[in-house]
Amino acid sequence: MKYPNGIKKQYINIKSHSNRGMNLENDINDTNNYYLVNDIAIIHKKPTPITINKVDYKSRVDAVIKEAHFKIPSTTDYNGIYKGKYIDFEAKETKSLTSFPLNNIHKHQIDHLKNIYRHGGIGFIIVRFTKLNKTYLLFIEDLISFMDTSERVSIPINYFEDYGHIIKEGLNPRLDYLKILDNKGVELWKN
Amino acid sequence: MKYPNGIKKQYINIKSHSNRGMNLENDINDTNNYYLVNDIAIIHKKPTPITINKVDYKSRVDAVIKEAHFKIPSTTDYNGIYKGKYIDFEAKETKSLTSFPLNNIHKHQIDHLKNIYRHGGIGFIIVRFTKLNKTYLLFIEDLISFMDTSERVSIPINYFEDYGHIIKEGLNPRLDYLKILDNKGVELWKN
Repeated sequence: MKYPNGIKKQYINIKSHSNRGMNLENDINDTNNYYLVNDIAIIHKKPTPITINKVDYKSRVDAVIKEAHFKIPSTTDYNGIYKGKYIDFEAKETKSLTSFPLNNIHKHQIDHLKNIYRHGGIGFIIVRFTKLNKTYLLFIEDLISFMDTSERVSIPINYFEDYGHIIKEGLNPRLDYLKILDNKGVELWKN
Repeated sequence: MKYPNGIKKQYINIKSHSNRGMNLENDINDTNNYYLVNDIAIIHKKPTPITINKVDYKSRVDAVIKEAHFKIPSTTDYNGIYKGKYIDFEAKETKSLTSFPLNNIHKHQIDHLKNIYRHGGIGFIIVRFTKLNKTYLLFIEDLISFMDTSERVSIPINYFEDYGHIIKEGLNPRLDYLKILDNKGVELWKN
């Protein structure tokens, strides 16, 4: 584990401790729940993919998994439907103050999002710079154009400022990312 | 476990044994893979939802789950995109010769499919009568109209014949269920 910019380990520990239960994944799950109960959109997080090796069938109703391994996910974490459109995205946090390292996302997840876009769906990533308290949505087409034109292995924060869309944090919903899709408007719905 | 129609237990065991690796889930996964590599549609099975209780972090790369439990899924097993449309379905086998018991599908999965339909997606169930070697696709709107008009706790096979769509088995793809969506044509794409 690297601690960029000479920030002390202890500081990061305290920081991440106080944020426990307030992280990006929780914010998105809460937001998706808000969308669901208010009948705005149906978007769910996929379960963590695992390979099950051993199961103990204690009783007819209660099976206990005794050995399993985490698998590399073949798709993104979130998908669903909004205004009749297929929605697909991945969400990541970074502690960096300056850029988002692309190795945070598996290559086949980016390929998956590209595919979704080609098939007429809406694909994007949500990236939170935890130390800056800033969360951006970047559409897959803008991520692709970065990767096609840059040799860099991380996306500098100004790229998010210029081509991404900041998502303001609120109380309810906590992270109204679908608003960004509304704002994109006509352009988005034409394909 | 019930053995309907007086069929002996041994028979069922042999039968299900010889069919191992050829079941509905495998057929659908193979078909989805065919759709994916031929760039026809992007449809994936969601991982089995579990609650993880204990993880053994042997090393940095290899974590082993030591205790976990199966959770009731909050959505259906399959979703994705086809021709720009959001697709969502559940697949079930039954050994019955006469009807499909509705308790094979969780009520909230049916509610989920209803929701998808209301939001402009395409929802359906795929049901295989294993002893008859017949596999049907039934759109959620037709499943709802059955449930709204009948008190029965199982759907008789003639309802599938009249309102469902038989999916012919092939070699590659094994179970071309998207063809049914094509055949439905205009009606399907208008919403």
